[in-house]
Amino acid sequence: MFISFEGTEGVGKTTLIRKIHQHFEEQGKQVVLTREPGGTPLAEQIRSMLLAVNHNENMSHDTELLLIYAARAQHLQQVILPALESNKIVLSDRFTDASFAYQCSGRGLSQDKLQLLNQNFVSSMPEVTFWLDAPIELGMNRARERGALDRFEQEKLSFFTKVREGYETLWKAEPERIKRLDATQSPDQVFEQALQYLA
Amino acid sequence: MFISFEGTEGVGKTTLIRKIHQHFEEQGKQVVLTREPGGTPLAEQIRSMLLAVNHNENMSHDTELLLIYAARAQHLQQVILPALESNKIVLSDRFTDASFAYQCSGRGLSQDKLQLLNQNFVSSMPEVTFWLDAPIELGMNRARERGALDRFEQEKLSFFTKVREGYETLWKAEPERIKRLDATQSPDQVFEQALQYLA
Repeated sequence: MFISFEGTEGVGKTTLIRKIHQHFEEQGKQVVLTREPGGTPLAEQIRSMLLAVNHNENMSHDTELLLIYAARAQHLQQVILPALESNKIVLSDRFTDASFAYQCSGRGLSQDKLQLLNQNFVSSMPEVTFWLDAPIELGMNRARERGALDRFEQEKLSFFTKVREGYETLWKAEPERIKRLDATQSPDQVFEQALQYLA
Repeated sequence: MFISFEGTEGVGKTTLIRKIHQHFEEQGKQVVLTREPGGTPLAEQIRSMLLAVNHNENMSHDTELLLIYAARAQHLQQVILPALESNKIVLSDRFTDASFAYQCSGRGLSQDKLQLLNQNFVSSMPEVTFWLDAPIELGMNRARERGALDRFEQEKLSFFTKVREGYETLWKAEPERIKRLDATQSPDQVFEQALQYLA
């Protein structure tokens, strides 16, 4: 089983993933916890490039998208596919939906570009995706409390509003796979809501 | 004018580019010298990842291809397109043909993947491409003399034989754009042959 967790900054993905990880481990299941962009040393190097705040050179939107898919290709080959083949449960903090929400809806890149990258470079999709949804301001405040903001976190409210709308579009288009969780609830309530969907 | 220079390791691209650069400057033209992967600080960072010998994690072929196109997108936006718009001559050590030769012919990736990346992420192509062709062994010896071998240079002779065949395929398919230079000649002879094509 492959489960991804999506949402804008500070909506509580990490906490939920930790709880679901514990839940599966208590059932004696083998779980791989991972994240995007990243998940392998090489892909984490790409993540660092993506998140670094660089005042001397603007990263083009195409470069951003292609770097994310370079990291994803590595993550799939090294981590996700081998884990699924050995019947482990994969819990990934973000996957392709994030590219739609951030790069297409947020940055304005065409969906065609994304679609062809997905078709040609992504050989496995999550069976279940939890979208943690909360008002943007709430998550932004939590992100700010965590320390220095990365290149994405430094974006304006209008960017994250579009990212949230991107997730909403996906959720409406694929309600079977994507489950919306009300992330304004307590962490335990969010976890219970997720468990109900998994059951 | 946009000119690219292609060929396997050690065939004398750098020397030829220097001579052509000087030639154009003597004519009072503005020339931008650049290379791939690379050409901007960010794209050079991606180049370092691509060339680094990493014994702990194999880079997947898809990752390699996507990293090259991430660097290329940045190179186009930051260097090539602005230079062409201000009527400068761009001389690039490698461009998309290298991706066909190394990643498709050499690594065995499908041409479809390359084609869709070119169609969606490459908005400008060279008018002229010089393919410096020499027996693989000759270039490999020159590359070895330059010092420690990078991740590509460490490949086997069979890999470079396929890369060379890739360039030959492209040359036969696009003889108008791609000009083959006999790189077993002296540097001055190679330069003269290139000048004849430019004239």
